This record gives sequence, C-alpha cells and structure tokens, in this order.
Amino acid sequence: MIGYPNKKKGSSSQVTINNAARRGMSLEEDINASNDYYRVNNLAVIYKKPTPIQIVDVYYPSRNKAKIVEAYFRQPSTTDYNGVFSGFYIDFEAKETQNKTTFPLALIHKHQLDHLRSVHLQGAVSFVIIRFTRYNETYLIYSETLFEWLAQETTRSIKLTWIREHGRLIQSTYHAPCDYLAIIKRDYFEVKK
Amino acid sequence: MIGYPNKKKGSSSQVTINNAARRGMSLEEDINASNDYYRVNNLAVIYKKPTPIQIVDVYYPSRNKAKIVEAYFRQPSTTDYNGVFSGFYIDFEAKETQNKTTFPLALIHKHQLDHLRSVHLQGAVSFVIIRFTRYNETYLIYSETLFEWLAQETTRSIKLTWIREHGRLIQSTYHAPCDYLAIIKRDYFEVKK
Repeated sequence: MIGYPNKKKGSSSQVTINNAARRGMSLEEDINASNDYYRVNNLAVIYKKPTPIQIVDVYYPSRNKAKIVEAYFRQPSTTDYNGVFSGFYIDFEAKETQNKTTFPLALIHKHQLDHLRSVHLQGAVSFVIIRFTRYNETYLIYSETLFEWLAQETTRSIKLTWIREHGRLIQSTYHAPCDYLAIIKRDYFEVKK
Repeated sequence: MIGYPNKKKGSSSQVTINNAARRGMSLEEDINASNDYYRVNNLAVIYKKPTPIQIVDVYYPSRNKAKIVEAYFRQPSTTDYNGVFSGFYIDFEAKETQNKTTFPLALIHKHQLDHLRSVHLQGAVSFVIIRFTRYNETYLIYSETLFEWLAQETTRSIKLTWIREHGRLIQSTYHAPCDYLAIIKRDYFEVKK
C-alpha cells in the first residue's frame, strides 16, 4: 500500500474536515460512516435498512448459488434508518436538496411521514435529516416540529429560513461526518433528563 | 363476494384458531400478520426488514422504469425484525425447525448473535423466537437468557427441554397468530414496572 498515499479516503494525515473535503460525499455516505463509528464504539446501533426489492425470478446455476435475474424496486413503507441509542428507539429519514431556499417536501413520501407519526406515537425519537448541499448545511428536524409545520402550512416546500430557525444544525466531525447523535444526546440527556 | 364463503382466509365465521388451521402457516407469515395487527391498532410499530440484495445490473427500458437484471442475496448483518413498542426498542430474529428435540443454533448467524448483543447493551428488548413446527410450539427467549446458555454450553444445539423451561410460550390469538407482544407487555409492564 506504500506509494499510494492518496488512494484511501480518510488517510491518517487528514485530521480536519473542511467543507471542500466533504463536497462530493453524499448525505447517505456521511450518515453510514457516522453509524459505523457509533456502532464500533458502542455508542448506538443504527442501520440503514436494505432497499426493498420485489423479486420475480431467481436462477440457480448450482446448489449454493442464487442469481436474481428479474426484480423491481418497491416503494419503501418506512423510513430508511432505525436503531437504538441508550434505550431510545431512533427512527429517521434523510434527504438532500440542491435547492437554494426551500426543501420540497415531496422528497419525503407520504407513507414515510405516516410512519414517522406512528413511531412518534410509540415514543420514538424520530426526525428527518435535511441537507442543503449548496451550503453544506445539514439539519435535524424532530417529527414533532415537522408535524407542527405540516398542520399550519399549505405549501409543499419548507423554507430554509424556517429550517434554520426550527432545526438543529448537525456538525461534521472527523469520526462522524454527520454527527446527529450529538444533537439527540444534548436534547434528551442534558435537557430533558 | 357472496357465494364464495371459503375463498378468503380468516372469514368472519372463523373465530377460533386451532393448531390444525394454523398448520402450513410459516412463522414468518404469523409474525408479519401479528405485526400488521399491532400496527393497525397502534399497539406497536414493528417491521420485517427487507432482504439485503447486492444489485449488480439494472436495465432502464424507459425513464420511470427500472428492472434489476442481475443481483445476489447478501448475508444479513442484523436481525430480521425491529421496531418500537411504548418507547422500547424491539429487536429479534425468528427461526423454525422441524427437529423433535433440539434447536440447531447454526440457524442463527454469528453476526446476528453479535447484533443481539450490541442492541442488548444499548438497552433494547431483544430476543429470538423459535418455533418447533412438529408440536406447533413457539417460544420467546430473551437475549440475556440465550447469552447465559451460550456462556455455559459447548454444544451448538439447544434442547427443547431447556427452551420449554427458560423460554416464554407464545400464544396464538385470532388477530395475532404469534402474539409475542403479550409476553413483552407482561414482562416489562406488569413485572418490571
């Protein structure tokens, strides 16, 4: 591996993360990397769920092999991420937009909002993570706050100004490029407890 | 629909479930039906995770269609079921065996046991559901109990006699053919709280 100093992302010489370095990393990659860090360090066990697939035809070239030769993407009926943190059930959806001033709510499916409502009623810590890629600003908005917005608004776009005011800005750290757990820790342990 | 009294499973005339009627229903189907019932009645929000698939090639016959033409099954890194019940994070794996006297632990992957350990450490209500299809007996065994067994035993098979003693027998009700939630309710609300 010596002789390829730039081959691996996150080499040991890279100790600070700046916006430029993070550009090009998707929100999903950042969340997955953060979840890996949380998991390895026993901070939380949170996974992205597999993409739901409708399998139509499978070919078995040999006894132990199975090749799916016809399948289709299905609409997810839940959010993409869930897991457990210090006894709390965590559930969220994450979306990014290249828009400048608004987040189109259509990016979150209706059944995902319904799911957030259901888990919220069951006592979940549920939220959405929204990133404005142009500014590299990522926010956590609790379901409760989002439902309040939904109850009042008739438009289908959430203004960035509203999000900046009602959301929690998520920091990017070296180990957790989308460190949403820090927000939950602060809100549930330092304030509510 | 009149004139086809036997067409639908679970028609209104069928009010009791006996072992004979349930024979042929897989454990997965019973759990999914129970989860549907829990969800619709706001008792709990628990889902089976989609099967993890490695997608290799996708064909796009038109702009909005996507047909997966090459994909493979991946080993799951977590258990199959998770969700939330009254603020508790619920996580479990379910397996059935046709064996008469033992459950082969090999049916539960090592990384699934590791996952149960991790979520248990984070305060989850975690367990396995094991069904002996020959007797139509289904048991819930808490992770904690299973880990105690693992720490003491050197064999890779759990005796049915041990399971009968240390597990909780799950009842089958009309609405919830594998009513594991009743066990959790009893253990966490009536005893521990």
